[in-house]
Amino acid sequence: MNYPITIKNLIECFKKLPGIGEKTAERLALATLNLDSSIIHLFSESLENTKIKIKRCEICNNLSEEEVCSICKDSNRNHETICVVEDPKNVALFEKLGTYHGVYHVLDGLISPLDGINPENINIDSLIKRIEKENIKEVIIAIKSSIEGETTALYIVKILENKNVIVSKIAHGVPLGAEMDYIDALTLEMALENRKKISEENNK
Amino acid sequence: MNYPITIKNLIECFKKLPGIGEKTAERLALATLNLDSSIIHLFSESLENTKIKIKRCEICNNLSEEEVCSICKDSNRNHETICVVEDPKNVALFEKLGTYHGVYHVLDGLISPLDGINPENINIDSLIKRIEKENIKEVIIAIKSSIEGETTALYIVKILENKNVIVSKIAHGVPLGAEMDYIDALTLEMALENRKKISEENNK
Repeated sequence: MNYPITIKNLIECFKKLPGIGEKTAERLALATLNLDSSIIHLFSESLENTKIKIKRCEICNNLSEEEVCSICKDSNRNHETICVVEDPKNVALFEKLGTYHGVYHVLDGLISPLDGINPENINIDSLIKRIEKENIKEVIIAIKSSIEGETTALYIVKILENKNVIVSKIAHGVPLGAEMDYIDALTLEMALENRKKISEENNK
Repeated sequence: MNYPITIKNLIECFKKLPGIGEKTAERLALATLNLDSSIIHLFSESLENTKIKIKRCEICNNLSEEEVCSICKDSNRNHETICVVEDPKNVALFEKLGTYHGVYHVLDGLISPLDGINPENINIDSLIKRIEKENIKEVIIAIKSSIEGETTALYIVKILENKNVIVSKIAHGVPLGAEMDYIDALTLEMALENRKKISEENNK
């Protein structure tokens, strides 16, 4: 390639991002040439700031620019309910819903002994400490239902057994609006198992 | 979204790039958190440099960090053949081939009166000046065969009529390895029209 070194470097940087190959990196690098100076400056500055400003909340481990994140600091939220999620992106997912008013706990990974990820490698210790120290009534496990997810969920249930706290898990089943034909067998099995009675009866 | 402002800004910046929507921008912004400091620094610096260092070659209009690009400066290349391309990305395409040893001319657009792009809006004037000043033997038009591409090609042929220079055009036809079933009618028509005799004969 005969691109100037700046463009070559930019292509290499874009390629470091997940899902971006040679061609896309090239397209993106050339597209930056058409961006306004103000955007370029903000882009460059924000990138540097990811290393300088972004920390983890010392309570819930969510991304934050301060010691304690905006959610943990918010006194209007229900601090007795903790939603346990795998990563900060999942916090954003729930926040977009706008219907969950509790707080979070970001594990930063799931237990996976085969990959060498044991309970001590993810952020579970601090969850236990929170439950011992704060007045927590319910822990909602909101992690995916893969083998790692189930292992992690089971581990959390086990370790919180005698802590006088309700542990719940989000429902897994057929997504709303999904075509039944495309649902995998495991999901369907779980959906069937967790069926809910909907007929009106007196003795429910 | 409850992301820290740095991440929010980064998401907005990624969204300015073509083909990057909300979800991808979020994914990319979060992925930057896992990049090494050295990459982040190079990324940020390269972005700033696109505005500071990247210019256009004053001969061929290709991207360059100097007044004259590395291709125009290369005395080993054939400076009597100019390959006319739409944008700098196409220069890179031909350079990857490694078989073209002439120089280039980057138009930066194609004539499209409906979009208000007339010959004076693209880099054609400087092509004429090059042909008048330098010793150019052949101009190869290597632009796509859309309406705009054909209009531009015709315009170049017309304007170079009396300049004592050969004007050629890259072949359009069925791509190598392509399934015939998927070739559009126009391409097939052109491929048929431009057929080449391959039987051995004496009187060719």
